[in-house]
Amino acid sequence: MVIVMGPGATRENVEAIVKVIAAAGGEAFVSRGVSRTIIGLVGDIAQLAALDLRGMPGVADVIRVSAPYKLVSRDNHPERSTVRVGGVPIGPDTVTLIAGPCAVETPEQTLEAALMAKAAGATLLRGGAYKPRTSPYAFQGLGEAGLRILADVREETGLPVVTEVVDADDVELVASYADMLQVGTRNAQNFALLQAVGASGRPVMLKRGMSATIEEWLMAAEYVAQRGNLDIVLCERGIRTFETATRNTLDVSAVPLAQRLSHLPVIVDPSHSGGHRDLVLPLTRAAIAAGADGVIIDVHPHPEQALCDGPQALVDGDLDELARVMERFPPLLGKVAAGDLLAPA
Amino acid sequence: MVIVMGPGATRENVEAIVKVIAAAGGEAFVSRGVSRTIIGLVGDIAQLAALDLRGMPGVADVIRVSAPYKLVSRDNHPERSTVRVGGVPIGPDTVTLIAGPCAVETPEQTLEAALMAKAAGATLLRGGAYKPRTSPYAFQGLGEAGLRILADVREETGLPVVTEVVDADDVELVASYADMLQVGTRNAQNFALLQAVGASGRPVMLKRGMSATIEEWLMAAEYVAQRGNLDIVLCERGIRTFETATRNTLDVSAVPLAQRLSHLPVIVDPSHSGGHRDLVLPLTRAAIAAGADGVIIDVHPHPEQALCDGPQALVDGDLDELARVMERFPPLLGKVAAGDLLAPA
Amino acid sequence: MVIVMGPGATRENVEAIVKVIAAAGGEAFVSRGVSRTIIGLVGDIAQLAALDLRGMPGVADVIRVSAPYKLVSRDNHPERSTVRVGGVPIGPDTVTLIAGPCAVETPEQTLEAALMAKAAGATLLRGGAYKPRTSPYAFQGLGEAGLRILADVREETGLPVVTEVVDADDVELVASYADMLQVGTRNAQNFALLQAVGASGRPVMLKRGMSATIEEWLMAAEYVAQRGNLDIVLCERGIRTFETATRNTLDVSAVPLAQRLSHLPVIVDPSHSGGHRDLVLPLTRAAIAAGADGVIIDVHPHPEQALCDGPQALVDGDLDELARVMERFPPLLGKVAAGDLLAPA
Amino acid sequence: MVIVMGPGATRENVEAIVKVIAAAGGEAFVSRGVSRTIIGLVGDIAQLAALDLRGMPGVADVIRVSAPYKLVSRDNHPERSTVRVGGVPIGPDTVTLIAGPCAVETPEQTLEAALMAKAAGATLLRGGAYKPRTSPYAFQGLGEAGLRILADVREETGLPVVTEVVDADDVELVASYADMLQVGTRNAQNFALLQAVGASGRPVMLKRGMSATIEEWLMAAEYVAQRGNLDIVLCERGIRTFETATRNTLDVSAVPLAQRLSHLPVIVDPSHSGGHRDLVLPLTRAAIAAGADGVIIDVHPHPEQALCDGPQALVDGDLDELARVMERFPPLLGKVAAGDLLAPA
Repeated sequence: MVIVMGPGATRENVEAIVKVIAAAGGEAFVSRGVSRTIIGLVGDIAQLAALDLRGMPGVADVIRVSAPYKLVSRDNHPERSTVRVGGVPIGPDTVTLIAGPCAVETPEQTLEAALMAKAAGATLLRGGAYKPRTSPYAFQGLGEAGLRILADVREETGLPVVTEVVDADDVELVASYADMLQVGTRNAQNFALLQAVGASGRPVMLKRGMSATIEEWLMAAEYVAQRGNLDIVLCERGIRTFETATRNTLDVSAVPLAQRLSHLPVIVDPSHSGGHRDLVLPLTRAAIAAGADGVIIDVHPHPEQALCDGPQALVDGDLDELARVMERFPPLLGKVAAGDLLAPA
Repeated sequence: MVIVMGPGATRENVEAIVKVIAAAGGEAFVSRGVSRTIIGLVGDIAQLAALDLRGMPGVADVIRVSAPYKLVSRDNHPERSTVRVGGVPIGPDTVTLIAGPCAVETPEQTLEAALMAKAAGATLLRGGAYKPRTSPYAFQGLGEAGLRILADVREETGLPVVTEVVDADDVELVASYADMLQVGTRNAQNFALLQAVGASGRPVMLKRGMSATIEEWLMAAEYVAQRGNLDIVLCERGIRTFETATRNTLDVSAVPLAQRLSHLPVIVDPSHSGGHRDLVLPLTRAAIAAGADGVIIDVHPHPEQALCDGPQALVDGDLDELARVMERFPPLLGKVAAGDLLAPA
Repeated sequence: MVIVMGPGATRENVEAIVKVIAAAGGEAFVSRGVSRTIIGLVGDIAQLAALDLRGMPGVADVIRVSAPYKLVSRDNHPERSTVRVGGVPIGPDTVTLIAGPCAVETPEQTLEAALMAKAAGATLLRGGAYKPRTSPYAFQGLGEAGLRILADVREETGLPVVTEVVDADDVELVASYADMLQVGTRNAQNFALLQAVGASGRPVMLKRGMSATIEEWLMAAEYVAQRGNLDIVLCERGIRTFETATRNTLDVSAVPLAQRLSHLPVIVDPSHSGGHRDLVLPLTRAAIAAGADGVIIDVHPHPEQALCDGPQALVDGDLDELARVMERFPPLLGKVAAGDLLAPA
Repeated sequence: MVIVMGPGATRENVEAIVKVIAAAGGEAFVSRGVSRTIIGLVGDIAQLAALDLRGMPGVADVIRVSAPYKLVSRDNHPERSTVRVGGVPIGPDTVTLIAGPCAVETPEQTLEAALMAKAAGATLLRGGAYKPRTSPYAFQGLGEAGLRILADVREETGLPVVTEVVDADDVELVASYADMLQVGTRNAQNFALLQAVGASGRPVMLKRGMSATIEEWLMAAEYVAQRGNLDIVLCERGIRTFETATRNTLDVSAVPLAQRLSHLPVIVDPSHSGGHRDLVLPLTRAAIAAGADGVIIDVHPHPEQALCDGPQALVDGDLDELARVMERFPPLLGKVAAGDLLAPA
């Protein structure tokens, strides 16, 4: 940490701080400039951060300089990680396509969507049985019945299942069906849930909070990691800005940035960020080109009947184009599509 | 809802939509302009909203025009509501001061803070036993031990207790100690928690999500209300913007706006929005002047030793000024300080 | 400035930086912590800031700690300033009401609005002759004809005139009619215009850019000040955020913050921030309660016929309430309404 | 436009509106729902928009449904346009690389940067002679001397020149040297400047305002177009959000969106959006993959000595990689690099 003294700070003010830091077991290095004095702090950051340094006489600002996450930081783990979900890799060597319906509605719709997804190159099936909805009057998902449908479709198609969990109490149940647990944007700081998925023994896909900084997103991942689970995939899904032409603003820069700060894989959700079907393919290409380790995409056999987010689901014609993107873009990034890797020779 | 057709939309496109709406039990009114055709929809909004109207040929935009909340809407309940917490009113006729320590640390600190709060005119005691913290390495609160301290201090001071609950599983326990349950900004879309506090039988203080629109905030309240609990107080606590000089940007306009849209009382948290001690009093005055039905403020007897948010806690000297504000501003708004109302003659 | 070294930085990396700083005429103080080394820099900030320190090996971050503005900073001018406009003070001792039509349309409308404003306690007349409009198809103002109308109305009412200038080329002309030049939010970083008003010899009202940080706002003021003009009044008018229920989000915290960082007076525009008539009075009260040195408000005798921003103009009934606010709120802040100060005994 | 009546609106309220619209030469279509009445308006939007409809009794909301821009709209010009700058195309068939130093400093530095740019595939040279800087104490550019350097380097390298103009008064001078005029983000609503470049006879590159919606950006283009100049290239350069890890947040979705709404070419500035050298290549790839018609990139032979934005300039090693991106990505989008198109057989 660095303490910046105000222009009127006295020698006594500086000495008082040096004493407080020493009392807390830290060390203070004083740099006296012409107009400002700066004090560099060394020691146990958590302990120093708890002091009311901002409230001490003469202090103008207190700046934290080291990242507050440890387990997910790339500082201590320079090699980027690969997370495996039912045998499917998500990591630096691959681009993994995760696709399926936004919400599980019926066995037929789910199977049909899964087959569409697989044909486009998907190696993991997404689908929601528990849907966090802004309105209590909107469709909230089928619950366990939906999980059973997902398990049946996995059986039929061989695609491991990624599904959202919205309540710490449901983690055990969802983990008994799913191959990967998804934590959604609205729960990005639901710490009880983060700890529960951390203890679940399942890989976790952690969506970025819609107003979370990259640092807060990594802190959320740290909550999961702290329970002993480092099988975490970060998912950028758009942030909230003043622009209303899109549902959210896809922060494509977050892909290379999060990969530089953390060793965890980073994927992108182009469906929920754009919110319009005709943005999904451009954003998918952009995500892969920026270096994303995968994408997660809504597909629906009959979007006009969808109970949730129909307007952003890809339909049949789009999927051929998606398949072409999955074939042609990853090699330019020195990666392979996870589907090609897993395909029988 | 209103459907806006694109400039190239044909008569057939319009007719197709009219049919789809009729099939869904709604009615469609077509306004043909020179460059655009507009279709006004009438019927069960939830049902119409589920259709993929945006995906139909010729459609340029679909605009929802009626508010999606009902129970908390002022449309259906023109009189503004008063919520009572252990006998203390929060509503249109009063300005209620809620104060206390950000986090309960020790019995002594909590009692001392409560006495400071009471002297400044507080009629409700705030204090956190469960603290949602961005970092898993930060102090997370004392849990039930903290609740017991709060209950003891209530006994001693007569101040009913407002405290945060962060997990649906804890609601029953927290409700057994507290007079009012607080749902924090990070849980503003934790729907399981909203439903649990809705079923708790306790009044609820619902903080606005840091990136929630006013509409989303009212939808969150609707989740609580739907479980039969209309004793909800809305709390504006600052939103996330590009400005970094404050911790959050207090959206003071949200006070009159939320009061116009909803019958629920609206209070303000000037401590967490500003994040600096010397902003608390100016923002408290601004909140009351904008019409807020109360304020909730951090106080701490020794902020330099606080385990949480020390830099924003008011200290002794500030409290005299706070007392003066509570005395002089409410009458200008045609209100009385709740403390004066309750004081013995 | 402070340089934060990355975890892998070597002793040589640190020494290289110390040398570069010394070569640039500065001094570097090294604080070696367990996981991080911090280097505090002392010297000519502008010169040091021009170095590509971020690009040097081992550097993780470079943090600037001193404010980049000087002439408008309160550091060097602890006493808050009063700016006088045609004899009317705007400063720490007063609350000044500036009111009038958004746009000058006709002599009658302008005079009528000015008389309404004066009756409500206004001591300065606002009115736009040059209107910056998002659409080239919208009414752009009467130009010099509008300035003549303003001058005539000043003659008739005695109210000095505040009016916007949108182009550096117009500054001389506008200054020949107006008592104070206004620079609007869209021109908050139009540096040619800022320099031109700085050289005009007239007091300047500088609106905050709708996406300007408080620091950038003060830097814009520094551009004006640098041309020898310190008669600057800062005007908070709302910032752009994700919230769409208001036209802009009034950042009421900016009032005490800007007053702490700068010696310049700070006023608020509640009309353009809220964008709705029924928000104007609550926001006016909030602004004054937060310590604003004045407010600038749209009034219009017939808003339904206004060529610009009719929906936010106050009308007759509101003005009585505005007069009451101007009478009752300033004394609570230790201020007097500028109108009372100027009124004959 | 659509008027949404409030729940308490009476038949008389609706009739009053119908009359006002008729008086303004428009037509009103009434859709009466169970809880709401909607009125669709048809007629001259500019005229209807000037009415204070929001202020009329019973009105809850007024929604504009047609785009306010015409000349730049794709509605009236479905074919996407190609703009030619000194013979170099920017449009739907090509990806054009524009590169050069952020600021022109010396003839040597500019020539060296231009040769680096050309080697990487650039067909247009960027370089600033007039620099809009947040601080009045920062380097403001060489002015006309800089323009002369750019003209000399064009002579030497054959690269047409793109350079920024910051003041309407300078447009004629800058246009006498430059092949394309750039309007920067801070001047995105400097309407005098927009009109002046519109009348200059030169192609214009219009950067998006850092807080401009896509609609406002297109309205700014409409100001240029209205003066008879449709040779406009839109440039996305990042928007202001809460995220501080990047200088701005590149809104990559704006590329396909602006291309759908307007016939004008859309390019991306990955240097100023990211603000870090190591984000430039990932964002360049993302921009091209999203469909951008070009990119504009800072290069500098010695960024550690740069007077402006050194930390984001590409250096030698990066340029080989940039050349590879320009070679391999455009074909995947059905485009060719403009450089390949122009290269001699």
